[in-house]
Amino acid sequence: MLNRVRSAVAHLVSSGGAPPPRPKSPDLPNSTSAPPADPPQAPRSPPARAGSGSAAPARTVESRASFCRPTFLQLSPGGLRRADDHAGRAVQSPPDTGRRLPWSTGYAEVINSGKSRHNEDQACCEVVYVEGRRSVSGAPREPSRGQSCWSSQKEVTHESLVVGAIENAFQFMDEQMARERHGHQVEGGCCALVVVYLLGKVYVANAGDSRAIIVRNGEIIPMSREFTPETERQRLQMLGFLKPELLGGEFTHLEFPRRVQPKELGQRMLYRDQNMTGWAYKKIELEDLRFPLVCGEGKKARMMATIGVTRGLGDHNLRVCSSTLPIKPFLSSFPEVRVYDLTQYEHCPDDVLVLGTDGLWDVTSDCEVAATVDRVLSAYEPNDPSRYTALAQALVLGARGTPRDRGWRLPNNKLGSGDDISVFVIPLGGPGSYS
Amino acid sequence: MLNRVRSAVAHLVSSGGAPPPRPKSPDLPNSTSAPPADPPQAPRSPPARAGSGSAAPARTVESRASFCRPTFLQLSPGGLRRADDHAGRAVQSPPDTGRRLPWSTGYAEVINSGKSRHNEDQACCEVVYVEGRRSVSGAPREPSRGQSCWSSQKEVTHESLVVGAIENAFQFMDEQMARERHGHQVEGGCCALVVVYLLGKVYVANAGDSRAIIVRNGEIIPMSREFTPETERQRLQMLGFLKPELLGGEFTHLEFPRRVQPKELGQRMLYRDQNMTGWAYKKIELEDLRFPLVCGEGKKARMMATIGVTRGLGDHNLRVCSSTLPIKPFLSSFPEVRVYDLTQYEHCPDDVLVLGTDGLWDVTSDCEVAATVDRVLSAYEPNDPSRYTALAQALVLGARGTPRDRGWRLPNNKLGSGDDISVFVIPLGGPGSYS
Repeated sequence: MLNRVRSAVAHLVSSGGAPPPRPKSPDLPNSTSAPPADPPQAPRSPPARAGSGSAAPARTVESRASFCRPTFLQLSPGGLRRADDHAGRAVQSPPDTGRRLPWSTGYAEVINSGKSRHNEDQACCEVVYVEGRRSVSGAPREPSRGQSCWSSQKEVTHESLVVGAIENAFQFMDEQMARERHGHQVEGGCCALVVVYLLGKVYVANAGDSRAIIVRNGEIIPMSREFTPETERQRLQMLGFLKPELLGGEFTHLEFPRRVQPKELGQRMLYRDQNMTGWAYKKIELEDLRFPLVCGEGKKARMMATIGVTRGLGDHNLRVCSSTLPIKPFLSSFPEVRVYDLTQYEHCPDDVLVLGTDGLWDVTSDCEVAATVDRVLSAYEPNDPSRYTALAQALVLGARGTPRDRGWRLPNNKLGSGDDISVFVIPLGGPGSYS
Repeated sequence: MLNRVRSAVAHLVSSGGAPPPRPKSPDLPNSTSAPPADPPQAPRSPPARAGSGSAAPARTVESRASFCRPTFLQLSPGGLRRADDHAGRAVQSPPDTGRRLPWSTGYAEVINSGKSRHNEDQACCEVVYVEGRRSVSGAPREPSRGQSCWSSQKEVTHESLVVGAIENAFQFMDEQMARERHGHQVEGGCCALVVVYLLGKVYVANAGDSRAIIVRNGEIIPMSREFTPETERQRLQMLGFLKPELLGGEFTHLEFPRRVQPKELGQRMLYRDQNMTGWAYKKIELEDLRFPLVCGEGKKARMMATIGVTRGLGDHNLRVCSSTLPIKPFLSSFPEVRVYDLTQYEHCPDDVLVLGTDGLWDVTSDCEVAATVDRVLSAYEPNDPSRYTALAQALVLGARGTPRDRGWRLPNNKLGSGDDISVFVIPLGGPGSYS
C-alpha cells in the first residue's frame, strides 16, 4: 500500500504525473533539490466481521505475502517468535540503538490474544526523495506551486492534486489485489490509514476503522472518521436502491427499527430510505420482509448481516454468510483525505498526531489518549527523542492491559483489547525536523 | 407545500401517524390540550436556470394556481396591482392594523425588476393546533415523549419522527405536483424552505437556494445550505455512473477542469469522478469528449448545462436545452433538515431566525444581514412588536437598492437584486410567546 501511495505522489511531484500503470520499484531516485515526499505510515488492520469472514492465514499464501513484522523493528528470528507469542503479548518497538524513524516518530505494537495466528496489523514508515523532471505531454509543468493549472478554467490546487493521487493510490491498490488474488490465493481484506507529509501539509487518508487524531495543546482534532454501516447508511442504501440486482432478492435497501415479522404484513411500521435522516411510517409489503441491507447499532451494526466496516482494500471474494451474494460491490476502497497545514500553527514538542488500529480505539477514547499524551510526554525532556516511542508503548499497554482473572484486564477491571494493537505517534513540533 | 408539511406533522402528532394518502383539509381540529404544530413559513423561489428553463406564467394555469400574494398581506385589488408593479417595486408587509403573525414574526417582500411577469416567491405562515388521539394499529402511542419506540430495538426519537414527517412531506408534495401537472398544465418548479416549531425545537428544512440563518447575540448560525451542481457534485456523478442511461450518451459523469477538445484524444488530463475530492490524471478517451454532467463554478455552475439548483419541487418536464433528455431524475426533492433546540439557550429579543429567498442572498452576505439585524433592532424598543417587520423591510430594501443610473443600485453603486425578494424575521426571544 505504501509503495502505491509513494509511487502515486512521487509521480505527481516529479512529472505532473499520470497514474503509474504498474507497481513501481520501491526505490525512487534521490535528489537533494526536490521536496521529500514523506509517507510516514500505513498501519492496517483487518475489518471486523461477523460470521465466517476470512482473512487467510499467512501460511496458505506465497512467500511474498508470508508473515513478517515491520522492518524498522529489526526483529531477529528469536525476536519474531517472541512478537508472535499470544500468551506473553510483549510490546514491540524499534530498538533504541537503531536508526530513528523520521521526525523521531514513535511506534509500538502488540499481537492479539489468540483471535488469529499472526498479528494482522502491518506498518511501515519511510522518507522518499523524488527528483523534479520535465513535464510530460500537455500536463502542467509545475503543479506544486499551488496555482491554478488552467488559467480561466476551474482552479486545481496543488493540495487537490495530492489528495487525488492518494485517492487513486487506494483504488489502484485495490485493483492490484483483485489481480493478484488468483495467482496467490490471497483472500481477505484490510483497512488502510496513510499519512503523507508534503510541502508543509500533512495528508491523512483513511479507509476503514483505524483512526487518527491530533492532540495539540491538549485539544483533540479528529483527522479521520470511521466507515461503518451506520455512518455510510445512505450511501449503501442508495446503491441498493439504484442497483437492486446487487441485493439478490435477499435484502431490502430500507431500514426498519427492528426485524419485520411476516404477521405484520399490511401493518404500518417506521422506516428510513436512502434519502431520509428521520423516520416515517409505511405499510409493510412483501419485500419489506427481506433482511435489511443495514442493521444493528454501534459495534453491532452490520451490512448484509456480515461486515461491520464498509471501506477498505481487498475482500474481492467476500460473500454473504450462507449465500453466494457478493459483498464487494458495497465496499468502497476510497479513503477520506483530511489535510492539516503545519504552517498555520506554532507547534510545540508535545503536539502529536496519533494513529491507531481498531485494537487501540476499541477500548480507548480520544480523551484518554489525550490524557496519556500529557502524562507520558511531561515525564520526559522536550528534546528527548525517545519520548514518542514511550508514548506509543504507553498507549498500547493501556489498551492491552495486564493478565488477570483469566483475561487481559485494564486497571478498572474491564477487559482490555484482545485484538492486534498498533500505534504511531508523530511529533508535529518535536526534535525531528520537517522543514 | 405548507399544507402538506402541516398535514404530515399534524398526522404524526395526532395519531402516531402514517403518511396521509391524500391532501388534507387545511383546517385541522383545534385542541387546547395538544401541542401547537407551528410551521411559521414557507417562502419559495424558482430555481436559477440557464437557457430556456420555463416557469409557466400564471395566466396559463387554472384558478387554483393563479397569481396571488400571501393572504396575511391583506392586499386590496389596488394593493395587489401596486405590489405587481415592476417599475415602482414597492416593499410589501402585513398592515400594522391587522392581526400580527405568530410570535410577531416580521415579513417583507418585493417583486422583481421585470425578469418575470409576476412575483414568483410565495410565502405563508400559520399556527396549527392538533388534537391528541388514540394510536392506530401497532404504532407507538406516544412518540412525542422523545423515548425509544421499540424497547431493545433501534432508538427512534421524537425529533427523528418530525424530521421524517417533513422529509416525506416534501416528497409527497413533489409527487402531487407530478400528478397535477397533467390536468392543470403547470410547468416549472420551485425551491422550498420550511420552518416548523414543535415542542421547543425549530426544524428548518431546505431544498433549493433559499437560505436561513440564526443571528444570536451577533453570532451567525447557518440553518441551511445551498444545493448546487458544485455542492452536490458527487451525488450527481454517482447517479450518472450507476445509471449511465440517464446521461443519454450526451454527457459524461466525469468532471474536467475545462472542456476537453477532440484533438486532445489520447492525451492526459485532470479529472474527478464520483468518489474523488481531489484531481488526478487520465488518458482522454472518446466518451470523455461528451459534455460534462457538472460544469462551471460558483453562480455559473450548471448541471447538464441547464440548471443551477439541484433540489426542489416540480420541474417534472424539464429537459436539457436543445435535447429531449429529462433532467428530473437528477433533481432531489428531499430537504436537509436542521434542528435548533430553543431550550438550550436563553434568547433575548434581538435573537432572530432570518429566512430569505435567493433574491436576498444574491447580493447580501450573512455578515451584512447580522449588521442590519443589530442596526435596525437597536433603533426600536425591545418589546415593540413592529421591529421585526421593520427589520425584514430593511433587509429587502438593502437587497433591492434604489433606482439610479438606469438600474436598481446599492449605496456602493453595485447593482441591487433584480429578482423577487422575500424575507421572514422570526424572533427567538421576542415579544411573541412560544411556550
